[in-house]
Amino acid sequence: MARYLGELAHLHRRMVVAGRTHGQQALPISFGLKVAAWLAPFVRHGDRLNQMTSRLLVVQFGGAAGTLAALGDKGLAVMQELAEELKLATPVMPWHAQRDSFAEFAGWLSLVTGSLGKMAQDIILLAQTEVEEVAESAEEGRGGSSTMPQKSNPITSELIVAAARTNASLLSAMHNALIHEHERATHGWQVEWLTLPQMVALTGGALKHALYLAKNLQVDDKKMRENIARADDVILAEAAVFALAKAMPRPKAEELVKKACGIATSERKPLIEVVMNLTAGALPDRAVDWQSLSAPENYLGDTQKIINRVLESANKLGSKRFHV
Amino acid sequence: MARYLGELAHLHRRMVVAGRTHGQQALPISFGLKVAAWLAPFVRHGDRLNQMTSRLLVVQFGGAAGTLAALGDKGLAVMQELAEELKLATPVMPWHAQRDSFAEFAGWLSLVTGSLGKMAQDIILLAQTEVEEVAESAEEGRGGSSTMPQKSNPITSELIVAAARTNASLLSAMHNALIHEHERATHGWQVEWLTLPQMVALTGGALKHALYLAKNLQVDDKKMRENIARADDVILAEAAVFALAKAMPRPKAEELVKKACGIATSERKPLIEVVMNLTAGALPDRAVDWQSLSAPENYLGDTQKIINRVLESANKLGSKRFHV
Amino acid sequence: MARYLGELAHLHRRMVVAGRTHGQQALPISFGLKVAAWLAPFVRHGDRLNQMTSRLLVVQFGGAAGTLAALGDKGLAVMQELAEELKLATPVMPWHAQRDSFAEFAGWLSLVTGSLGKMAQDIILLAQTEVEEVAESAEEGRGGSSTMPQKSNPITSELIVAAARTNASLLSAMHNALIHEHERATHGWQVEWLTLPQMVALTGGALKHALYLAKNLQVDDKKMRENIARADDVILAEAAVFALAKAMPRPKAEELVKKACGIATSERKPLIEVVMNLTAGALPDRAVDWQSLSAPENYLGDTQKIINRVLESANKLGSKRFHV
Amino acid sequence: MARYLGELAHLHRRMVVAGRTHGQQALPISFGLKVAAWLAPFVRHGDRLNQMTSRLLVVQFGGAAGTLAALGDKGLAVMQELAEELKLATPVMPWHAQRDSFAEFAGWLSLVTGSLGKMAQDIILLAQTEVEEVAESAEEGRGGSSTMPQKSNPITSELIVAAARTNASLLSAMHNALIHEHERATHGWQVEWLTLPQMVALTGGALKHALYLAKNLQVDDKKMRENIARADDVILAEAAVFALAKAMPRPKAEELVKKACGIATSERKPLIEVVMNLTAGALPDRAVDWQSLSAPENYLGDTQKIINRVLESANKLGSKRFHV
Repeated sequence: MARYLGELAHLHRRMVVAGRTHGQQALPISFGLKVAAWLAPFVRHGDRLNQMTSRLLVVQFGGAAGTLAALGDKGLAVMQELAEELKLATPVMPWHAQRDSFAEFAGWLSLVTGSLGKMAQDIILLAQTEVEEVAESAEEGRGGSSTMPQKSNPITSELIVAAARTNASLLSAMHNALIHEHERATHGWQVEWLTLPQMVALTGGALKHALYLAKNLQVDDKKMRENIARADDVILAEAAVFALAKAMPRPKAEELVKKACGIATSERKPLIEVVMNLTAGALPDRAVDWQSLSAPENYLGDTQKIINRVLESANKLGSKRFHV
Repeated sequence: MARYLGELAHLHRRMVVAGRTHGQQALPISFGLKVAAWLAPFVRHGDRLNQMTSRLLVVQFGGAAGTLAALGDKGLAVMQELAEELKLATPVMPWHAQRDSFAEFAGWLSLVTGSLGKMAQDIILLAQTEVEEVAESAEEGRGGSSTMPQKSNPITSELIVAAARTNASLLSAMHNALIHEHERATHGWQVEWLTLPQMVALTGGALKHALYLAKNLQVDDKKMRENIARADDVILAEAAVFALAKAMPRPKAEELVKKACGIATSERKPLIEVVMNLTAGALPDRAVDWQSLSAPENYLGDTQKIINRVLESANKLGSKRFHV
Repeated sequence: MARYLGELAHLHRRMVVAGRTHGQQALPISFGLKVAAWLAPFVRHGDRLNQMTSRLLVVQFGGAAGTLAALGDKGLAVMQELAEELKLATPVMPWHAQRDSFAEFAGWLSLVTGSLGKMAQDIILLAQTEVEEVAESAEEGRGGSSTMPQKSNPITSELIVAAARTNASLLSAMHNALIHEHERATHGWQVEWLTLPQMVALTGGALKHALYLAKNLQVDDKKMRENIARADDVILAEAAVFALAKAMPRPKAEELVKKACGIATSERKPLIEVVMNLTAGALPDRAVDWQSLSAPENYLGDTQKIINRVLESANKLGSKRFHV
Repeated sequence: MARYLGELAHLHRRMVVAGRTHGQQALPISFGLKVAAWLAPFVRHGDRLNQMTSRLLVVQFGGAAGTLAALGDKGLAVMQELAEELKLATPVMPWHAQRDSFAEFAGWLSLVTGSLGKMAQDIILLAQTEVEEVAESAEEGRGGSSTMPQKSNPITSELIVAAARTNASLLSAMHNALIHEHERATHGWQVEWLTLPQMVALTGGALKHALYLAKNLQVDDKKMRENIARADDVILAEAAVFALAKAMPRPKAEELVKKACGIATSERKPLIEVVMNLTAGALPDRAVDWQSLSAPENYLGDTQKIINRVLESANKLGSKRFHV
């Protein structure tokens, strides 16, 4: 999946899309940056998995109460050989009533589905009728409705979000099960049986679905630009403030741009045009490069460098090397 | 706390106590081994904390949508300097909508309280009137009742278990909050505000209480032996089977010991005495060393070596070096 | 709040808005119907509260173990008088270790915040830049951003959703606390202390915020119609299928409308116009009233009657009588 | 199950057992009272189920967005007939995006398993080797261990507690799923699919197991008395205080009994004997009926009346009428 997300981020690295905060257009970003933000956690998830492996892949062999008494004085030696046979490490002590590594692993599963859930939630929002910047795939009839021929529901993303939220709840059962009594618990492992296998299955399912999305996502460049324009380019407000602030006091620039936002929205005119009109005569010639300011792609900051950093860091996931 | 638990494990390393599984006496262990099992997870918690530090202590600086656009082409450089100023690392990208490291940290807090909760639950069970092998402390009036002068309630342990279970539930909120929408979430961080500070406080409180217990726990050696004897030494059943199996087929040994357990319990006689009587005349002389078999401390297997392994591994927590 | 929601539902009972399923425009509804769906659960919540009151407002008085032994044979009589003094009912037995009514009450709190959370989530989605059908209030500067003058973030709704999700997690702690040991628990009530007061506070806060929304919500009729038109009226697809199905076989009607949806979307023409063109010459004259079919307000089914039913049922909440 | 618990409560209504608070012997109760406390919540659960039925057994029929538009003006009439056909009630409005009754039902399931979990947890504690007042059943080999012939693990109770804790966690998923977006959710129902069927299955399983326990529980009268005596009758401390307080100031009585508790425990003498010795000569003749005071069954307060109240209230569950 990381490989496909990496390719997606790379492919759309300059495609301008509205960055949204609180559900509202905030600043322009590129779609590649958005995808990079879906990808970046998986590099950390890879590190986490590597780090927990030495705690997780550890033999449990201790007899009923962890003393290995039935083996006389050969207990630890047998444990050692058993571990080698099974290609597992040996623990400092039998851990039957110490479930922290299981709970840690369950937490990792839920971190993974949580990150996938964030990606899927974004896709659901981007696929809304009024936004329509992405579709889950070009597959005919996918997400169709029996009575509403216009529909193309983001059903795959929905399953992923559902898996993420279910895992988040199951995780609390796994952490309650940390309270194992004495040398072997009364009910704690039954709780684990009821929850951990599900969590593995939900995570596997969510990954499979996310892979489908990463491979098939349909991205609509034109619609992304349109959605910015339809909001009268108010997404350029911060850019406008900083541009004006070179030629006038910042508070005055802010006040002016705020006023311009109101006019742009009510009269449905591009924000920068409104700002230009409002400042006509009040600014020195060429104080502002209006044409440049009008283009959201000129206000992306370090977007390209950031995408590079993410792609480089993802190389260690081993799926594909990006040379950036 | 690790230091005090280590001392406790060391001090009571040969004190025989019933190992209990499913709430029932199973095999003899030493109280030091029990304490070692309380201590061992904290070595892993230490490793986990070290490993997550590089993910956690990372500056967040990205502007509203993570492009650093307001800083022109100096965004990453400023981020770098800010991070140095704050003694934080720099992330591959601004992570405002990637909350995995917070959820991981919350998971760690709940792992810690879960391990403390296991210790506290054991203490509550050991402090029961009918068991009475430990008391939380020798402090006068602690856990007393207004109307029942005989009471000495394990109130400190109760608070720890309560913190553990509450953290387990709060953790599911933190994992639900992984689903941050777009470049800044709509409600996810408010969920974090409502839960993460609590989790830190509950963990701090539980640690403080556990430290009190580790320092003050009263351990009753005599009662531990008595509880085994009062159960007619049936805890030695496995030892008896293995001893007999040297001189007769194992299935026959099992059958005989099972029968002996029934007699021991109903006639209230020590198990090994019953086994000896049942086998009188049927075993070669000196086939079994009855006296040795009667002593639970002779069926502790690798208990001492295991305690050593735990104490050695705990040295890296840095609180105190055990030379074992 | 019910009163304000009722007024809002009544006021906008004929305002056409897109009904959305899976995040996509599905069928036309009225905004009043949407608000009625926010209101309807609160009638049930009122019933639930009334029904649980007799379980909840019950004195707990039993002495340490529930026998009332310290009062000789006057225990139940004293309990009775105490209950009368406190204006509480008497339980069949002291319930110190039976926490079901507390957990039920906690569930009710979370049901309330869940229903408020659904309303708040809808508002967040309706307030998105690309939808903009509602704003939380007309208050100047509300939800503003320090650097982005165009923003008006749905901050009140966000707090409500956060309260709902936090309560959902805390509820699992309350249900774990049902497992009280013996006649008085070891840690269960401490768990309740840590969670129930929070749940009450979160519910109170969410209700206060929801009341603000119910009183101040800004609704943009024009935008609602525009959003339907901008999606080329495909929301009328089902209506078109049923209209055509009177003059041709239903499968054929479906096929034709599906094709028309494709054309409408790609050529950006109103769906019904496309359908009309596609069927030109193939249908008997006046088989379809094209003008009526073009108006979403003609495909609202029993919306008005349903709103009436909800308003009537809400009368019993006692806040205001709607005569419908 | 209520029937068997009722019979059990009735049968053992005068069997004295230690009432335990915080895991410690507090005051004498009867075992029948303990069972009554397991039974009492089920009367409330029955009431709850009856009350929610009218909210739960309600047809959902609304078309895609809840307007019933496809049926012209006959929508509500068809809904009415459908409901009659299915023997369901009609809702005030289609409730596809209002999930409160599902979450309420899930809460009920978890209340039921929580109450069963309390009973099962008590049985696990009572079945401990050091307590041994009950066993799950007389069935041969039940809860046996492969290597430890003495074991009789409370495996059925363990499954019940595990079901209770798992349901408690799943419940938080159901409450998160209350946040259904717009007229049909994006992922909320998938969460319900993943959790509600499990909760039903876990509850059914727990009930089946609890029925087994209610029918088969082995209760050891003798052991119950022995456990009180072995704790030197300190459970009578409150009784002693109240008895002495008739002949001396209460604070003095408390002080004296506290001292007596210490002596009883350290010298292993029955508390009342110690109290008698301590007060020798200091009390008027016959101020205290020492023999009566020595018998825990004389300090049960309103236990019998309370059991009657519970049995009478349980009659409405309809399984069996107790005439008390």
